[in-house]
Amino acid sequence: MTSMDLANLSVERAARALRSGELTPLELTEAYLDRIEQLNPRTNAYLTVTAERALEDARRASRELAAGKVRGPLHGIPVAHKDLYETGGIRTSGGSRIHANYIPTADSTVARKLREAGSVLLGKLNTHEYAYGVTTTNPHFGPTRNPWDLARIPAGSSGGSGAAIAAGLATATTGSDTGGSIRMPASVCGVVGLKPTYGRVSKAGVMPLSYRFDHAGPLTRTVMDAGLMFNVMADYDPADASSLRLPVEDVTDGIGAGIRGLRIGVPRGYFFDRLEEDVGTALEAAIIALAGLGASVREVEIPGVVEGLGGVFGFVHAEAREIHAHALRHCPQDFGDDLRAILQSPAPDAASLMIGLRAVDALTAAMRKVLEEVDVLVTPTTPITAPLIGQESVHYSNVEEGVMAAMIRCTAPFNATHLPALSVPCGFSRAGLPVGLQIAGRPCDEATVLRVGHAYEQATDWHLRTPSL
Amino acid sequence: MTSMDLANLSVERAARALRSGELTPLELTEAYLDRIEQLNPRTNAYLTVTAERALEDARRASRELAAGKVRGPLHGIPVAHKDLYETGGIRTSGGSRIHANYIPTADSTVARKLREAGSVLLGKLNTHEYAYGVTTTNPHFGPTRNPWDLARIPAGSSGGSGAAIAAGLATATTGSDTGGSIRMPASVCGVVGLKPTYGRVSKAGVMPLSYRFDHAGPLTRTVMDAGLMFNVMADYDPADASSLRLPVEDVTDGIGAGIRGLRIGVPRGYFFDRLEEDVGTALEAAIIALAGLGASVREVEIPGVVEGLGGVFGFVHAEAREIHAHALRHCPQDFGDDLRAILQSPAPDAASLMIGLRAVDALTAAMRKVLEEVDVLVTPTTPITAPLIGQESVHYSNVEEGVMAAMIRCTAPFNATHLPALSVPCGFSRAGLPVGLQIAGRPCDEATVLRVGHAYEQATDWHLRTPSL
Repeated sequence: MTSMDLANLSVERAARALRSGELTPLELTEAYLDRIEQLNPRTNAYLTVTAERALEDARRASRELAAGKVRGPLHGIPVAHKDLYETGGIRTSGGSRIHANYIPTADSTVARKLREAGSVLLGKLNTHEYAYGVTTTNPHFGPTRNPWDLARIPAGSSGGSGAAIAAGLATATTGSDTGGSIRMPASVCGVVGLKPTYGRVSKAGVMPLSYRFDHAGPLTRTVMDAGLMFNVMADYDPADASSLRLPVEDVTDGIGAGIRGLRIGVPRGYFFDRLEEDVGTALEAAIIALAGLGASVREVEIPGVVEGLGGVFGFVHAEAREIHAHALRHCPQDFGDDLRAILQSPAPDAASLMIGLRAVDALTAAMRKVLEEVDVLVTPTTPITAPLIGQESVHYSNVEEGVMAAMIRCTAPFNATHLPALSVPCGFSRAGLPVGLQIAGRPCDEATVLRVGHAYEQATDWHLRTPSL
Repeated sequence: MTSMDLANLSVERAARALRSGELTPLELTEAYLDRIEQLNPRTNAYLTVTAERALEDARRASRELAAGKVRGPLHGIPVAHKDLYETGGIRTSGGSRIHANYIPTADSTVARKLREAGSVLLGKLNTHEYAYGVTTTNPHFGPTRNPWDLARIPAGSSGGSGAAIAAGLATATTGSDTGGSIRMPASVCGVVGLKPTYGRVSKAGVMPLSYRFDHAGPLTRTVMDAGLMFNVMADYDPADASSLRLPVEDVTDGIGAGIRGLRIGVPRGYFFDRLEEDVGTALEAAIIALAGLGASVREVEIPGVVEGLGGVFGFVHAEAREIHAHALRHCPQDFGDDLRAILQSPAPDAASLMIGLRAVDALTAAMRKVLEEVDVLVTPTTPITAPLIGQESVHYSNVEEGVMAAMIRCTAPFNATHLPALSVPCGFSRAGLPVGLQIAGRPCDEATVLRVGHAYEQATDWHLRTPSL
């Protein structure tokens, strides 16, 4: 295999090659390190490349695999973390100047679990400053660039994580998602992103944006890979107050069972009201494809989305203000202008916060009710394709809207409701930019969400396209 | 059996008698209705007695059981609901004047589930106004009186639910618990109360005090009965935004397996710092008894309790203010003086709320961590026995403290942390007032909590004592 081929292997395929001896972790890791050296200056996906640690991890994995000790499907697989995930002994900046020299003593729970699963750590990935933002570029480390068009954003805040997969700079990455920050990059970078059910994956050691709406999850090349990553990442963690104590089941079990007879809900209205024309075209084709795979597709109604989102935005703002209050008092100049302005703007009062939470609860109950009638919901992930770096607004469906508001409108409802949601590539615009399909499901039913995503992916193969860089 | 004997049967024992034909639901129901007529004027546990509905339910259950159709262990069992649980066609006052004539069209989820399980509805039980309060008596319907001493409170807010069990006025009752409102009445009335893990029992149709800290659960005569009620009450409910989607397991499975080798943590410090002397004596005896049953008892430390409680109180206040904001604007005169004063006092600002939530999260993580080292925690339920009606403060352990603050200090930490917690009778003061032992466990591990409670109860038999009325 060429370096290019290696760099675009799925976890699943790479694991097979590693176990058969066709490939060693060291070869795979060196291919990535070369490629990062060559391409990172263009994408700026990595803030820190941990070459030494990667080689050390890879040598250990090579030895273990050669000795027949297989830790699991991630053994020897090169991964990278959003720079919000604390990594022991390795700088974790949170995309900020304030933490630019912060070296945690211990791994976040997820970083530890992935290490113990035998994965190889390539480095830490660019993000918006403290994950607050969708479209602005990082003021301290510069913009990450979308591998499909370097003039465009990879969206955020896990932009480095999406760009790294699209550019073939890691086999799998981690991200975090408070309003769509895993799924939006997945959508506009043409990769897979899974926001699990709230509380399924520990956030202990992941720098917070909002305790109530943050979710940790993987970005990968395929849906199966997202399942393989989720299997390792998900677990009860006493250190995370929101962690669910649930048995860990293999979500890839039955992932290939197909979707014949499955009930798929299409929430026309809010989620489809405003779409870039090519996104609309891709979505309609995806819905037809799902029906063609034997699913029973029906329209459903979800009331109260706008009100629920208002509740999320207000609460996230209040939480973020408090999380950063100390730094904001002591070194306001060290924040980027955008984040400082947000944090300095007044928080909603207690009454507004509570009214907002009631709207969030109402939306949650409404979605859960609809999900008694259907097994999953499908929507666009982002109603637009990747905007240009610096672009502030977008004109689509006869409205002019801020890019951030447009990007987040279909993803944030699933932060409000804590439901699992996946983004899967579902085509390209005429300009060659990726479009994402969002699949959301019942609480803790990641398995069904992944099963639908996998069936769609296998039937369409959009995920096999790679950008030329 | 005499009417007195019937009235004090456990669910378990009554169910056996009902299934064997030794007793019919109609006989049991009539015995309770007689007894309610005779004793309710003294205890004021019931706000509404649904005699007609009870007889109708009982006749149906009698017919079904005679025909060999057994719905389950609650079939034909007379129950009553805290008047916060909406019941279709039956007045649901919330203990308020504002809802004094409110007749819901449909059952709350729990009321429906208990109805479908074949139970008989005896009526609706007294509570603090909208469940906000521990010690004050109901300003609209008068105080509930503690069956062990009619001059004393049964605690609250589920005071009617605790008093009804203690007085033999229902086989099982429902309650709700935001800071201890199931467990405090259980403790001072000498009965069993279970606050399940947050989200395990649906609160849809239960009037809210605080969406974030409310829990619905049963009050019963025995721990086994609490398990039998929980089995029916617990389930995923799409209509409750906080409901956990979990498989329903029979928590009475293995309840009698004993506790040999189980690790029991005793959090000395905060939970044992202030105790009425007789409560302390009963607690130490209970801890010795648990060790005698083969458990390994060790001391553990839980930091941050006071800070966590501050977070709960602030958030509950902000939520309650918002829930009642409309009524407070339109008919402030219809609230009782105490509740109106609370609701009119200013809410914490957003920053304080968020700081409070962080303290709640820190306490949650601390408790969860300790619960990795031990299987359950035991503490006093209430550090004092039942106060007198109208008593405002208590002098104990060399401090003078408000009755409410004293009552709630050991229960509310488990509302903060959402962990399952049970109160079991563990003796009597020299004045003949009941003392409660609190047993708390891991998220969703009601089974272990009940197992410990059952072992203790069977070894001590405190629950067999009944007050003379």
